[in-house]
Amino acid sequence: MAVYTEVTDEALAAFLALYDIGAVVAYRGIAEGVENSNYALKTTQGDFILTLYEKRVNTADLPWFLGLMEHLAAQGLSCPLPVRARDGRNLNPLAGKVAAITTFLPGVWPRRVLTEHCEPLGEALAKLHLAGEGFALARRNGLGPDAWAPLLEKCEDADAVQPGLGGELAGWLKDIVADWPQGLPVGHIHADLFPDNVFFLDGKISGLIDFYFACTDIYAYDIAVCLNAWCFERDFSFNITKSRALLRGYMAHRALSDAEADALPVLAQGAAMRFLLTRLYDWLNTPPGALVTPKDPMDYYRRLRFHLAAKDASAYGL
Amino acid sequence: MAVYTEVTDEALAAFLALYDIGAVVAYRGIAEGVENSNYALKTTQGDFILTLYEKRVNTADLPWFLGLMEHLAAQGLSCPLPVRARDGRNLNPLAGKVAAITTFLPGVWPRRVLTEHCEPLGEALAKLHLAGEGFALARRNGLGPDAWAPLLEKCEDADAVQPGLGGELAGWLKDIVADWPQGLPVGHIHADLFPDNVFFLDGKISGLIDFYFACTDIYAYDIAVCLNAWCFERDFSFNITKSRALLRGYMAHRALSDAEADALPVLAQGAAMRFLLTRLYDWLNTPPGALVTPKDPMDYYRRLRFHLAAKDASAYGL
Repeated sequence: MAVYTEVTDEALAAFLALYDIGAVVAYRGIAEGVENSNYALKTTQGDFILTLYEKRVNTADLPWFLGLMEHLAAQGLSCPLPVRARDGRNLNPLAGKVAAITTFLPGVWPRRVLTEHCEPLGEALAKLHLAGEGFALARRNGLGPDAWAPLLEKCEDADAVQPGLGGELAGWLKDIVADWPQGLPVGHIHADLFPDNVFFLDGKISGLIDFYFACTDIYAYDIAVCLNAWCFERDFSFNITKSRALLRGYMAHRALSDAEADALPVLAQGAAMRFLLTRLYDWLNTPPGALVTPKDPMDYYRRLRFHLAAKDASAYGL
Repeated sequence: MAVYTEVTDEALAAFLALYDIGAVVAYRGIAEGVENSNYALKTTQGDFILTLYEKRVNTADLPWFLGLMEHLAAQGLSCPLPVRARDGRNLNPLAGKVAAITTFLPGVWPRRVLTEHCEPLGEALAKLHLAGEGFALARRNGLGPDAWAPLLEKCEDADAVQPGLGGELAGWLKDIVADWPQGLPVGHIHADLFPDNVFFLDGKISGLIDFYFACTDIYAYDIAVCLNAWCFERDFSFNITKSRALLRGYMAHRALSDAEADALPVLAQGAAMRFLLTRLYDWLNTPPGALVTPKDPMDYYRRLRFHLAAKDASAYGL
């Protein structure tokens, strides 16, 4: 939940004057998303989302993110479409930040993941991968394997979270990076497709949001992120029925090669490591009284241990 | 900003089935309000607000709050109108809490208070007082003068915020309670009409929200709350132009007696004491990592000192 930047009426009116979307009827801060400030904006022409990019997003990457969203929307994928100002720009300054307006997507993200959600999710992920193919520009994954060791080094107090945690993670990290697959199919991936980024309506997916970790990386890594985010129960047991449904949905639209299937355990280990490390860093570095409550990194420690024990893709129901 | 209770799709669908307002199109947590969980709910029939009442609101008071809102709306005041379920109830269980649906009000609350906001605010406050007259039931102010000493007693560590604070507040509190006016006109007051509870559209007030501190108390005390909440600048200097505009707006619709005017300094002291004490209590009792960041109580210490130095109503421009 996050509204970091308050926008005065005057600043908002001046900003909206750049666009052709009518006058403000309401805007309310949205208590979702942790990286940026999001407002539900209602104008005389309809509903929109106003996003102010906060410091964790590199503004140099914004044109790429918005370009990808525009490309995906043009391919028929339901994702927020950046609205262009009268002069054609889709990024403009607001309250000392850079801001964008995107279309409003109907739907509700699942607070509790059910098996029924997982097959449509897999389908949507495969469609996202296919739809991204024509977008020529690439963006490096800033939270890929080469980012993990430097991130762990910054978590000097890891052992304060659990005795021996720092050393344990360093050992696993080394193994995962050494085993990291080469030569797998690569393209544009979402890289953060958690339940709160997937809207459903009447049992069908109505939209995918929050492309601000999107990058160009191994397609199957995106599946591995979803296995982590969608297929564990609250007690951290792995639900193979959910992962089977997810993979079935995915493979209905994009076949997985043997090499991709074989790599699932190490990719899932890497995905768990990535979320464990960013959460651990936030856990150790969020000042008391901050607006955002850090999430417990140990949730991913438990997921990581499951993936470390996975011998092959059969652990995921393949 | 606050969303304390997450509502699953299934629970929401079952809840909405009690009402005749269409099917869910979207619901998003709103990052505003600190007492309850609020969702912007869009259905096939329009926009609504879904509120789940959290533990700080006494559920026994809810029928009174909702009854007052219904009464005020019927009198033509723009405030959220509780929507009744098919069986006539306006409160129903949801996710282990009690919840209500109210109509959506257009408008934007002023992030920066300008003098132009203050006259319409005063007018709206007087209209609120007049509109409430026909609502027969009374509700005691749970944060009135008799609540302050017990609240201060619970702030044992007050001196950790500022050396000597506890003793200083105890002394002032005793004086304010001793000087508290008797016999002033009483009726239903909002008691928490801060800028984030007042929506404007095109320079006019489009609605008042958040009636969950409303009670039956001295009308002029409601003015005193607004003098605290609207008329100080960021450096805590008092802006008499704003207070004059506020009082002018108020008196255009409801005359102030001499006794009410004379009581403004002590009422303003009491209002500052009330917000100082609840903030101080929250400041000392909010666990690290809580979802809500406590507000600095010393903002009201500074306001209180201004009011303690006010000799009479001329300090407020009367």
